[in-house]
Amino acid sequence: MNKFLQRRERLRELLAGEKGIVVFLGNVDSAAQYRDNAYKWRQDSNWLYFYGIDEPRFAAVMDLESGAEKVYADDFEIDDIIWTGPMPSVASLAAGAGVSASAPYAAFESDVAAALAAGRKVHWLPVSRWYNAVKIGALMGLDPAACFSAGKKGCPHASEALVRAVVKMRLVKDADEIALLDSVAEIGYLMHTTARKGIRIGRIEQEIVGDMEGVTLAHGWGTSFATILTQHGEIFHCHSHEFPVEPGRLLLVDAGAESNEHYASDHTRTYPSGGRFTSMQRDIYQIVYECNELAFSLTRPGVAYRDVHLAAARHMLDGLGALGLVRGDVDEMVADGIAGLFMPHGLGHNMGLDVHDMEDLGEDLVGYDPDQVRSSQLGLGSLRMARRLVPGNVITDEPGIYFIPALIAQWKAAGTDKGRVCYDALEKYLGFGGIRLEDDVLVTPEGACRLGSRRLPIAPDDVEQAMAED
Amino acid sequence: MNKFLQRRERLRELLAGEKGIVVFLGNVDSAAQYRDNAYKWRQDSNWLYFYGIDEPRFAAVMDLESGAEKVYADDFEIDDIIWTGPMPSVASLAAGAGVSASAPYAAFESDVAAALAAGRKVHWLPVSRWYNAVKIGALMGLDPAACFSAGKKGCPHASEALVRAVVKMRLVKDADEIALLDSVAEIGYLMHTTARKGIRIGRIEQEIVGDMEGVTLAHGWGTSFATILTQHGEIFHCHSHEFPVEPGRLLLVDAGAESNEHYASDHTRTYPSGGRFTSMQRDIYQIVYECNELAFSLTRPGVAYRDVHLAAARHMLDGLGALGLVRGDVDEMVADGIAGLFMPHGLGHNMGLDVHDMEDLGEDLVGYDPDQVRSSQLGLGSLRMARRLVPGNVITDEPGIYFIPALIAQWKAAGTDKGRVCYDALEKYLGFGGIRLEDDVLVTPEGACRLGSRRLPIAPDDVEQAMAED
Repeated sequence: MNKFLQRRERLRELLAGEKGIVVFLGNVDSAAQYRDNAYKWRQDSNWLYFYGIDEPRFAAVMDLESGAEKVYADDFEIDDIIWTGPMPSVASLAAGAGVSASAPYAAFESDVAAALAAGRKVHWLPVSRWYNAVKIGALMGLDPAACFSAGKKGCPHASEALVRAVVKMRLVKDADEIALLDSVAEIGYLMHTTARKGIRIGRIEQEIVGDMEGVTLAHGWGTSFATILTQHGEIFHCHSHEFPVEPGRLLLVDAGAESNEHYASDHTRTYPSGGRFTSMQRDIYQIVYECNELAFSLTRPGVAYRDVHLAAARHMLDGLGALGLVRGDVDEMVADGIAGLFMPHGLGHNMGLDVHDMEDLGEDLVGYDPDQVRSSQLGLGSLRMARRLVPGNVITDEPGIYFIPALIAQWKAAGTDKGRVCYDALEKYLGFGGIRLEDDVLVTPEGACRLGSRRLPIAPDDVEQAMAED
Repeated sequence: MNKFLQRRERLRELLAGEKGIVVFLGNVDSAAQYRDNAYKWRQDSNWLYFYGIDEPRFAAVMDLESGAEKVYADDFEIDDIIWTGPMPSVASLAAGAGVSASAPYAAFESDVAAALAAGRKVHWLPVSRWYNAVKIGALMGLDPAACFSAGKKGCPHASEALVRAVVKMRLVKDADEIALLDSVAEIGYLMHTTARKGIRIGRIEQEIVGDMEGVTLAHGWGTSFATILTQHGEIFHCHSHEFPVEPGRLLLVDAGAESNEHYASDHTRTYPSGGRFTSMQRDIYQIVYECNELAFSLTRPGVAYRDVHLAAARHMLDGLGALGLVRGDVDEMVADGIAGLFMPHGLGHNMGLDVHDMEDLGEDLVGYDPDQVRSSQLGLGSLRMARRLVPGNVITDEPGIYFIPALIAQWKAAGTDKGRVCYDALEKYLGFGGIRLEDDVLVTPEGACRLGSRRLPIAPDDVEQAMAED
């Protein structure tokens, strides 16, 4: 049976208690400089999951009661053919997605308006882009800004029933998806290996970024998110790459590939710029490495990923205590969120068609079981995946330790640490930067495995050896 | 004097007859998958030209009467610092642009609303992105879709006086801009050389694209538009790169770099896939090459680029006539637009901060002198730059010949060619593809020069020799 039809039938089963229609909106091109100079075309992930048609300006309606389905788009005319080449007919693309009825794009709006006029419920997902916000807003009589997820809680106007059903499905990857994730992990391996081999004192960071992103473009759609390659690892999303590689620094590389089928990889490694860790760097690196390994060893069905985060936090505080950077009872420190000073982010997130899978649907609905309450602590509060794991979940395992001068100063001034942080000892770490080590993990019936056939060197000795051989 | 202040003062001079305020809106991040996974950050070009602040979520107001200026943006808070690093204060960034007053972003909307409430005229430019369309639309009481340029005529609701003043300025590049354009042409040279060296029978087109785009990312912001690299050169904007390079084909590479300062390059070369042109390919190539050279030789101050387009069209029809593909009086064929069957696009466009410079402001206002009327003919009607040239104009010179089966069939069926096209002789060209040869040209006081220090090999013998040496 057609894969997309199968998914939509399952969606209808999950929505068996609901009435009305479900609308799906594909993306249109998104301007970079001006309207006709668009960013690289990227289809909406939910559309890809349920219809698979990787072309702009498509929409669809599914009638939950009659089961009728229709795909909306415009066939190409001679001008389109001259400028962008022939395209299969909309009817044939719809048929490829298992839908037998199609109509021009303009009919989408009139069909939805007719359903609304008839008093029928219209289910829609929170939007990701402003064009779709304007489109859905006009149909539903909403301000465009109200059509996005509002922070972590999702979009109050969108259909929560639809969101929950989509999340339930996309959280558990099917065999096709696992094969695609395995395959893009190979591109991720190549891009990170290219980066590691490109590290040389004096090279501008941007040159290394260019090399590694060239690999993602040669073998896939491009990067799955804006590449982070920086000697300022303490800045989580540092996208400036203007600095020459300096001796004695740590170079953090957090980067992923997106395949031509639009599945993501997401790996992080942190390298000693000159190929050998200083002893101070190695001490911190070792803790992060152990946290990564520990988290992986705990990852299995039935375990809440929130508890894995907390286990990693505990191990981190143990290690930082041994280095004299924190002091006190480790359980109390974990409970008080002291780890958040050093790792103000979560241990990991779901991954799939989006690198933070389904983030547009509302982080809490995606990453939290109904009985789980999101923490307000720094760090744990940023955890995007807290759920009890089930086979087919694909998550990242990405502990990190950072020394963020502005945050340390803020905690010190506010006494947030309740006396647990040794600020004097921290002084010499203020120029340290940060370390993060990240793998992509599939939850299996028996436990977990890492995606891809090869793991990037991660143990400190292995990293130094690989760099010596590069 | 501060370069940006100087530009804004000149703008005020050009708007001396106008009252009210001018608003400038910078871009915000634009979602790729979901809101927080944005496409690579790209500032609005007009904002860059007048303020130069390369950060998201800025706006500015300039009072045409009092001369008062204010920049609006929000200073970073601790969360921003953790996630994206420290940023200079808004006040200091404004000062760098020569503006002494700044305020939080929210004050932008209230200040504009207050001006409107006081009955003052608000001048704004057509927008390029949907977020800004929503923003301007809300301020001005317009539908977001009404805030873009509507086709070639510009946006009827935006300020035509402001558009004309901005176009007048940006059409003539100053010394700073010429240096930046020269410099990005060097990246363009590197990327095209990388592509040429990467051509090998059996390689997937996408691998070559990855290599060349890696170069643009290593040395600049990235590509200035979506790379065209295809054995289907007859499709103008062919962005699928899925095919292996086959023997005996032509590979058209139309690609540009954008520098870190956001100036564009745009070159096209067309290569024989196996390194040697067939005689059929060489015949057509030679005509396109001569058209490119002819256009360059005619480019000088005072000449209308529309006439250069027509001269190239005439030379092309001459050459096609010699090959037995068209017949009849060349003047009549030029007048009847027969060249449009073979080159359904214009000879060139303005280039600068945008690869089609200022296209969002309205093509006719940008590319046509007030006394020039745009043609409705296929080809000439797509000419984006028709104006009488002045020193400082930067334009592309990009003739091409294409054999587009769907278009040929349409003309034949409709008799559009008035008996001038030899369809029988055209039969054997239906699988030929297309050839385009493009350079970037600066109009100088004496004539013209090509940007960059080195010209990519273009004469057919030179291309074959370069490929033999690669």
